[in-house]
Amino acid sequence: MGKPVNNRVMLRRRPEGLPKKTDFEWRTEGVPRPGDGQVLLRNIYLSLDPAIRGWMSPAENSYQPPIEIGEVMRGVTVGRVEETNNANFAVGDYVMGLNGWEQYSISNGQGFISKIPPHLDLPLSNFLGVLGTTGLTAYFGLLEIGGPKKGETVLVSAAAGAVGSIVGQIAQIKGCKTVGIAGGKEKCERLKTVFGFDETIDYKASGSIEEKIRSSCPAGIDIYFDNVGGEILDGALNCLADGARVVMCGAISTYNDETPTTGPSNLWQLLVHNARMEGFIVSKFVSEFPNAISQLGRWVSEGRLQHCEEFVDGLENAPDAFLRLFDGSHSGKLIVNLGRL
Amino acid sequence: MGKPVNNRVMLRRRPEGLPKKTDFEWRTEGVPRPGDGQVLLRNIYLSLDPAIRGWMSPAENSYQPPIEIGEVMRGVTVGRVEETNNANFAVGDYVMGLNGWEQYSISNGQGFISKIPPHLDLPLSNFLGVLGTTGLTAYFGLLEIGGPKKGETVLVSAAAGAVGSIVGQIAQIKGCKTVGIAGGKEKCERLKTVFGFDETIDYKASGSIEEKIRSSCPAGIDIYFDNVGGEILDGALNCLADGARVVMCGAISTYNDETPTTGPSNLWQLLVHNARMEGFIVSKFVSEFPNAISQLGRWVSEGRLQHCEEFVDGLENAPDAFLRLFDGSHSGKLIVNLGRL
Repeated sequence: MGKPVNNRVMLRRRPEGLPKKTDFEWRTEGVPRPGDGQVLLRNIYLSLDPAIRGWMSPAENSYQPPIEIGEVMRGVTVGRVEETNNANFAVGDYVMGLNGWEQYSISNGQGFISKIPPHLDLPLSNFLGVLGTTGLTAYFGLLEIGGPKKGETVLVSAAAGAVGSIVGQIAQIKGCKTVGIAGGKEKCERLKTVFGFDETIDYKASGSIEEKIRSSCPAGIDIYFDNVGGEILDGALNCLADGARVVMCGAISTYNDETPTTGPSNLWQLLVHNARMEGFIVSKFVSEFPNAISQLGRWVSEGRLQHCEEFVDGLENAPDAFLRLFDGSHSGKLIVNLGRL
Repeated sequence: MGKPVNNRVMLRRRPEGLPKKTDFEWRTEGVPRPGDGQVLLRNIYLSLDPAIRGWMSPAENSYQPPIEIGEVMRGVTVGRVEETNNANFAVGDYVMGLNGWEQYSISNGQGFISKIPPHLDLPLSNFLGVLGTTGLTAYFGLLEIGGPKKGETVLVSAAAGAVGSIVGQIAQIKGCKTVGIAGGKEKCERLKTVFGFDETIDYKASGSIEEKIRSSCPAGIDIYFDNVGGEILDGALNCLADGARVVMCGAISTYNDETPTTGPSNLWQLLVHNARMEGFIVSKFVSEFPNAISQLGRWVSEGRLQHCEEFVDGLENAPDAFLRLFDGSHSGKLIVNLGRL
């Protein structure tokens, strides 16, 4: 084996609509050295998330600066500390943090980075999925923003997705009736058999989405966990129960839109039903992450939280895999395996 | 004087866009007699509110059934109990409740009706305005839905209006910075001199509303009390501070629209700023009305809550006066005086 190198995927140009492979650029560099207070991480897994698409667009009053042209693609990784100039990290520590689509990252050990608790005997990749931002987004979005009460009806869009499937299961654990929306018969089948949703709605089947929601939620929706925006949000707003909460988690249906999205025409329903719509960025809850990870880990160990990880081998396949986030062809959490442990 | 009659204003046809005088019909009937459990009210004041416009349209999943064609127009009145078959009400009691555009109403004493506390030595008309649904909407919307904290920035649209002007003053009392939006120089002047807003924005002046909001709220908006919807809401959403609350109180800019309203294209800002948008119907807080009315009454007596009532004499002038709600030509609370006390 030769001298180790750092392969990286850079942003070559800003995508118009759906990203294309030519929007990315491959670069091979030397392994960087950590400066004062920094650590060198060898990345083991890279998480592919819809939010990355937003960071590829020019900044528009967003919660993260955009990735600059020529800069490394941004993403959450699990890595191992290989060198350290930071007293908080020892060589051999495993960490989860916001880094890049690259084999080695330099971190100053601040911001969005956290050590993986060694006592949780679960696969490292879980810390990008069910125990990572995916699971934490589901956990805080449902429990803190939604505030489910026993017996309430929880509607989840993109329910077969990484976040949605966990939302549904936590809602079950909390004693709610769960209704999941997904595209196609097969995914709807999985919602019932794998994730235990009480009812499912196939948004690709013929008929009005609003009618389908109304018939699955006859007492109205108490919590709508919205991963998609668009016309499913419109339909859900027309079926709210009094005191409903709409948790805004994402709007994947609009991420690749070139023209400004039109908002729901029926926001008025929030007023009619004493309801609210609330957005959140999971990092808001960063101080509560350790407790949440422990709880999620317990549920996984007890078999109460099914989750699905789909692995893609090799950084060179990350761009292709990323595009699959938007065509509905994947199931569960998409993770790029960057190399041996 | 002849035998008393009951003059009433009925809904003749559903308005298209702005209501016209020909949408109303005048009818003179005999004074009704209360049945079992009912009371006969002689209405003294009738409140004219934008929400009535909504009740004139066909029902669309609203919080109130529509007024039927040929039915009496609906509105909040202050009246005196003239006859009673209900043990909870005595002849001579004054009550505020949801009745009709008519001189006499029959009430079963249930639902939206409450006795006016005799110990509050304030004019009866106040119980349609600053101590009625107007003041209560401002009070609960700001304090319960908005939850203002000292030092926060509160933006209010239709700030010279009946609700908005009270919101601004309560926000001042709670130690917030207040920014009021109104149309025209004169109204903006009143916002400062009469209602004590810290800053004002004239939405009719040239320039982008978003720029004006941003320059008046350099630290971002903590609470936006939205009375109008439309493009002012769009502008405000782009200027939210982290953790912002948007209180949805009304959307007067859209009440007369014939085509479905387009929602804000930038709801995404709720997510970016961990913010929420929440609607409410004031009757949700009905059990807390007595305490709120006492508090509002104290502030009025202490001179801390300026309010303005504009009287229109005679039920026959109610339709014309109602139309003025939508052309910005009134200031303060519009009240129809139905006759002597």
